[in-house]
Amino acid sequence: MDNKAITEIIEKMLANNKFSALKELLTEMNVVDIAQAIEETELPENQVRIFRLLSKDYSAQVFSYLDSDSQGAIVEAITNTELKFLMEDMFVDDAVDFLEEVPANIVTRVLAHTNPETRNLINRFLNYPENSAGSIMTIEMVSFPETYTVDMAIAEIRRTALDKETIYTCYCTDSQRKLVGSVPLRRLIVSPGESEIRDIMYDDDQLLFVNTLDDQESVAALARKYDLLSVPVVDNEQRLVGIITIDDIVDVIEDENTEDFEKMALLLPSEDQYLKTGVLTLTKNRIIWLLVLMVSATFTGQIIEGFEDKLSAIAGLTASIPMLMDTGGNSGNQVSTLIIRGLALGDITIKDYFKVLWKEIRVAFLCGITLAAVNFVRMYILRMITGSQTETPVFIVVCLSMLCAVIVAKMIGASLPMLAKLLKLDPALMAGPMITTIVDALSLLIYFGFASLILTV
Amino acid sequence: MDNKAITEIIEKMLANNKFSALKELLTEMNVVDIAQAIEETELPENQVRIFRLLSKDYSAQVFSYLDSDSQGAIVEAITNTELKFLMEDMFVDDAVDFLEEVPANIVTRVLAHTNPETRNLINRFLNYPENSAGSIMTIEMVSFPETYTVDMAIAEIRRTALDKETIYTCYCTDSQRKLVGSVPLRRLIVSPGESEIRDIMYDDDQLLFVNTLDDQESVAALARKYDLLSVPVVDNEQRLVGIITIDDIVDVIEDENTEDFEKMALLLPSEDQYLKTGVLTLTKNRIIWLLVLMVSATFTGQIIEGFEDKLSAIAGLTASIPMLMDTGGNSGNQVSTLIIRGLALGDITIKDYFKVLWKEIRVAFLCGITLAAVNFVRMYILRMITGSQTETPVFIVVCLSMLCAVIVAKMIGASLPMLAKLLKLDPALMAGPMITTIVDALSLLIYFGFASLILTV
Repeated sequence: MDNKAITEIIEKMLANNKFSALKELLTEMNVVDIAQAIEETELPENQVRIFRLLSKDYSAQVFSYLDSDSQGAIVEAITNTELKFLMEDMFVDDAVDFLEEVPANIVTRVLAHTNPETRNLINRFLNYPENSAGSIMTIEMVSFPETYTVDMAIAEIRRTALDKETIYTCYCTDSQRKLVGSVPLRRLIVSPGESEIRDIMYDDDQLLFVNTLDDQESVAALARKYDLLSVPVVDNEQRLVGIITIDDIVDVIEDENTEDFEKMALLLPSEDQYLKTGVLTLTKNRIIWLLVLMVSATFTGQIIEGFEDKLSAIAGLTASIPMLMDTGGNSGNQVSTLIIRGLALGDITIKDYFKVLWKEIRVAFLCGITLAAVNFVRMYILRMITGSQTETPVFIVVCLSMLCAVIVAKMIGASLPMLAKLLKLDPALMAGPMITTIVDALSLLIYFGFASLILTV
Repeated sequence: MDNKAITEIIEKMLANNKFSALKELLTEMNVVDIAQAIEETELPENQVRIFRLLSKDYSAQVFSYLDSDSQGAIVEAITNTELKFLMEDMFVDDAVDFLEEVPANIVTRVLAHTNPETRNLINRFLNYPENSAGSIMTIEMVSFPETYTVDMAIAEIRRTALDKETIYTCYCTDSQRKLVGSVPLRRLIVSPGESEIRDIMYDDDQLLFVNTLDDQESVAALARKYDLLSVPVVDNEQRLVGIITIDDIVDVIEDENTEDFEKMALLLPSEDQYLKTGVLTLTKNRIIWLLVLMVSATFTGQIIEGFEDKLSAIAGLTASIPMLMDTGGNSGNQVSTLIIRGLALGDITIKDYFKVLWKEIRVAFLCGITLAAVNFVRMYILRMITGSQTETPVFIVVCLSMLCAVIVAKMIGASLPMLAKLLKLDPALMAGPMITTIVDALSLLIYFGFASLILTV
């Protein structure tokens, strides 16, 4: 049964006042699916009615999975007491995510009905830089002194497990609350009960953590490399202040990938889903690069204008311009995408530059020769079919330019992302637009250069 | 200390025969870092020497993290007995990954020294279709009958935990070994010891699983949507045959993303890292789309040739061709990237087509108007500076064409990925190449159409 069908059933049950049956149904559903059903419900008052039927155990979880529109609608409708309980039941990182998205008046009301301790916490979280480890961490982790025994640790976990975001990796601290070790629950439950935690925990070189100010990308890289289920976050004094769990890390990975896709498609990165983004925002995200590239096409225009006499005089020369430019651009983008991706995943580093360049020169030569040869045949056949007046020397100019343009394009496609990385700029952001512009202009210069050398009017 | 430095220390210790100190060092290191150090070691015999110093508890894990070159080198050097122990200690999914990459003679020798039960299992795994759930699952999961009590379950976990890939979600089966429920370890340890598992497990609608033949992409989507740490895999009779853990799911997500990047950059998808891929393979992965697009540029060439007389006669007309085509192509790619990404993440479905189209028409209109206006000013200023003879009606033709080309490009960019999805083709594979070709040709036709209408020679 798909979600749409479930939503319709829920709406019918609401219309017929079958509240207790609906309550039963909701307890059988996954919180993610309940959230989706609430979002799909047409009437805002029905969203609140469904939400109120949820058992207290699940309502905070369901709320965390809702989009900000539905969250806003529910918070506007519930009483201050309900709001207070909701905020108490939510994990701090989910509360922060929610507050970052809703209008200011809702934030004010929510914070007014949160207990002072949580309010301070939330305010601290809201102050971490965007996309920092601090901004995505949660404080609901399991931590205990390294002096605990295994039995004490397990008792502590059993007592507090329900309030923790994960219990599967536990963190050990010293008397100054500094992070000194980590121990997976798996290791705990197979260890003798009287062992001391400090004897079984991972410490020193094997202890992995990030700082609150580290970028979320480096958190994801660490978790991916070492297959971690959660990453501990420490402050500048190495005190344990939070953890980031794998579900949030998966979201970071998808967000970073989406951002790279957007950058390479010449879009300003956007945090919102496409369908929820307004026309004006979409326009704003796209127009800047389109304008920059249009204006930078002044170069190619000027190159062509400077050569206009020759283009008019020699038949067939103009017709190949789009093909040459497209092939150059495509060749360059093929390389730059591989390099940008390799840099992002850590498979390639700047030190590999000359290895990459040498590889690309050979690939470019093979690609260029093949393309030039096929193109010669293509032009030859086309002339036979259409009876055009393009002369064979023009073919030679086009094919030679093709070979050189591909080589130049591949070298630029390999170099620009590396250069960006070296200058600590974002390879994905730099490379796309600049490669097209540079390769377009160079392809034309190469083309007209060969034309001047070989063809006489 | 970075990994390069550690590798050098290890090599020095080997050269000076400080084996017991090295052994101590290795026990303090993370398995991922040991694997990296082995890969970075120059001499193949040193790779084996380090590997042999590893305690038996870790050697299989370290082996799993090695790349296939180092795995092959080690397997060639170790004795049959060592090989047998190694295969027994490795998780089945890691063994399968390793066997899929190494040469056939190594596979034969490995299988000859594996016990018959494991050999059968490995063979079954090797037969699952590439990228299916079966091919990436592991059989080392925790499962017990639904009739167990919590205490029995926990005792079972403590006893077997070390041989399992994860113990954090346990799976419950009925007397026919059919999957009937799942229970997180967290839920187990907070439940009373005498409770029966069937009373606390998630079942029915809340039980999530995939089939061995399902695509790995759907496994990743399920895990991402419901924040799962592992996904159970069942056969056609719904018998539990394996699980897929979050670390492998993270790899699937990155692989699928890499594949989409490659497709959109007109590359054939490749499984290997860039630096490890040979020049011939790289060339092969790139040349096909370059050739297809070069040949399809015959259309644009023909359109230009058909219009060559007018292009020669009217100054400034040729110079704007690259700019128009680039702007059209960029506009189309901006949309198609957003749609492809939205379809891949499930944020957009085919049902949203008309919503998307209507949104894109409005965005295109705003972008097109802005671009046309800025372009008019740009051409005007340029004429003042360069004193070119381009007449104002040419400006009007270019700007009108720009507006129309952007609108057409955005509509095509929105429609093609949806059409591909509707036809059950891969949006990422279809859209990139076709959009450029179609938009290039249409932009030219629009341009020359306006030129014929407005300009007279």
